[in-house]
Amino acid sequence: MSNRIKVAIAGYGNLGRGVESALAQNKDMQLVGVFSRRNPDSVSLLSKDVPVYAMADLEQYQDKVDVMILCGGSKSDLPEQSPYLAQFFNLVDSFDTHAKVNEHFDALDAVAQKSGKVALLSVGWDPGLFSLNRMFGETVLSEGETYTFWGKGLSQGHSDAVRRVAGVKAGVQYTLPSEAAIERVRAGEQPQLTTREKHVRECYVVLEADASADTVRNSIVTMPDYFADYDTSVHFIDQASFDKDHTKMPHGGFVIRSGVTGAGNQQTIEYSLALGSNPEFTASVLVAYARAVHKLAGLGEVGAKTVFDVPPGLLSPKTPAQLRKDLL
Amino acid sequence: MSNRIKVAIAGYGNLGRGVESALAQNKDMQLVGVFSRRNPDSVSLLSKDVPVYAMADLEQYQDKVDVMILCGGSKSDLPEQSPYLAQFFNLVDSFDTHAKVNEHFDALDAVAQKSGKVALLSVGWDPGLFSLNRMFGETVLSEGETYTFWGKGLSQGHSDAVRRVAGVKAGVQYTLPSEAAIERVRAGEQPQLTTREKHVRECYVVLEADASADTVRNSIVTMPDYFADYDTSVHFIDQASFDKDHTKMPHGGFVIRSGVTGAGNQQTIEYSLALGSNPEFTASVLVAYARAVHKLAGLGEVGAKTVFDVPPGLLSPKTPAQLRKDLL
Repeated sequence: MSNRIKVAIAGYGNLGRGVESALAQNKDMQLVGVFSRRNPDSVSLLSKDVPVYAMADLEQYQDKVDVMILCGGSKSDLPEQSPYLAQFFNLVDSFDTHAKVNEHFDALDAVAQKSGKVALLSVGWDPGLFSLNRMFGETVLSEGETYTFWGKGLSQGHSDAVRRVAGVKAGVQYTLPSEAAIERVRAGEQPQLTTREKHVRECYVVLEADASADTVRNSIVTMPDYFADYDTSVHFIDQASFDKDHTKMPHGGFVIRSGVTGAGNQQTIEYSLALGSNPEFTASVLVAYARAVHKLAGLGEVGAKTVFDVPPGLLSPKTPAQLRKDLL
Repeated sequence: MSNRIKVAIAGYGNLGRGVESALAQNKDMQLVGVFSRRNPDSVSLLSKDVPVYAMADLEQYQDKVDVMILCGGSKSDLPEQSPYLAQFFNLVDSFDTHAKVNEHFDALDAVAQKSGKVALLSVGWDPGLFSLNRMFGETVLSEGETYTFWGKGLSQGHSDAVRRVAGVKAGVQYTLPSEAAIERVRAGEQPQLTTREKHVRECYVVLEADASADTVRNSIVTMPDYFADYDTSVHFIDQASFDKDHTKMPHGGFVIRSGVTGAGNQQTIEYSLALGSNPEFTASVLVAYARAVHKLAGLGEVGAKTVFDVPPGLLSPKTPAQLRKDLL
């Protein structure tokens, strides 16, 4: 088994746990350790035979890890951790602060060029697979419009807002693509749509014993900033249904390119994801790209990269000839 | 305008005409000539100011063309033309005889390695964009099933069969994905489906004046090999509707990956195309990849390549930093 790609995880929350699961589905890869800022003894992995190390001891393991997968947050973890770790490891991160992506790229590239490592940033589904589809769409159909819709997905901030309403015992909010907006796009209308027009909001609420459903609904749908300007529906359910159906982290969305070729022929490319677990899917994308990073490093590549720079075949465990035979 | 990528077309039918249209939508590229086996004087292009040359004179133009786009057929044209042209030009073809793809790759690679050219084969939507999506699907969701559905698309062979039925004045046949089958796949059932179970057939027929609709319908739906084993519907229309609505070349289809991650979370990736014109869309894909071939050649790459080998960002006219800023 010594030929397996040796992967480590830096940061063990929902995403790190997803990476651990995804690695178990890929037999050419092996989880060799998890690095955490918490006390290693307090971190409990899905697998009992994988060691947990203190983040502070990272440098000692640089010869034992082929690729590091960073599972920290984009706000404060990754801007520090990615450039630091690129001194010692080939790595993949899921940096998703769009406005700072070139800044993060430059910081990573400076370090990785010097250390001779490959540092792949902003991997996942958005940024990541959705980015690729936006690129293919606008490039193949150069006259047209691109639309990104998100959902059905749980929104943390809006769920919190629902739970702050008097009379709400438990609540979640999902953002959904507007079916009406999607149909207009599919029909080739190329409408101008705001994020607001593209999405609707759906709330599932468990009421306190003495609460009035009408009052709670009204408080939610008229809430400024959060709901007032959206098409919002509120569903009342009991605690048992809530516990059974509304504790997962679903997400997904659509990238649609609507274009025209020749003498006005309508062409539509549509990419969509329906995800039972957002962190597990993001983790699965990170793991596939970790394989590609290992191969890029083997080919002598160095520096910061994005999904735009990675030949897709490198993601697969198959040889180029096998890929052509099976999938072309 | 001398910085534009100089592209030539070899073979001028529906696909070649689509490439000419697509090049006009891409301002960084320029059509510098069309090569035809017909008498050049008999070939009439959409654009009046582009020269048509005899295929036999190709070699003279090798310094005037950055990338050649081959628009011949896979059965007899491309197996000869691609390796021949790879002696002189970087090229893209749309070779789609799946069973012979590695044979074609090897033939092209031998020539291109020697000539120092880049030869990209099997570009289009299937093979091409669908191949990429099959690869991403099975790699990201390593436990799951992949489904390819084709249509709505006009089937030439089945349209011919409809037109041979006594009493049929005009007719076309479309192959459509079975909605029932797609719903089962989307629901995560991972059913085993034959090509037959995945598709239904729809015919549009103009009757001869004295023909019986019931007799014609029965002859079609019971026709062995072509229709008897499919769910087939027959619609009777008048000649004016036929001329108005059934003379385009629509096509499209779906690639769906249905997988499971973690402790049984269902994940679905769906890619679909709804194409008003099949040859114009295929041509648009060829043109985007011709840009990538030019860049690969500029980077010193040589040999045969497929879509699996091409970093996606090379398809775009944008710089890497611009791609990150606009699309990541």
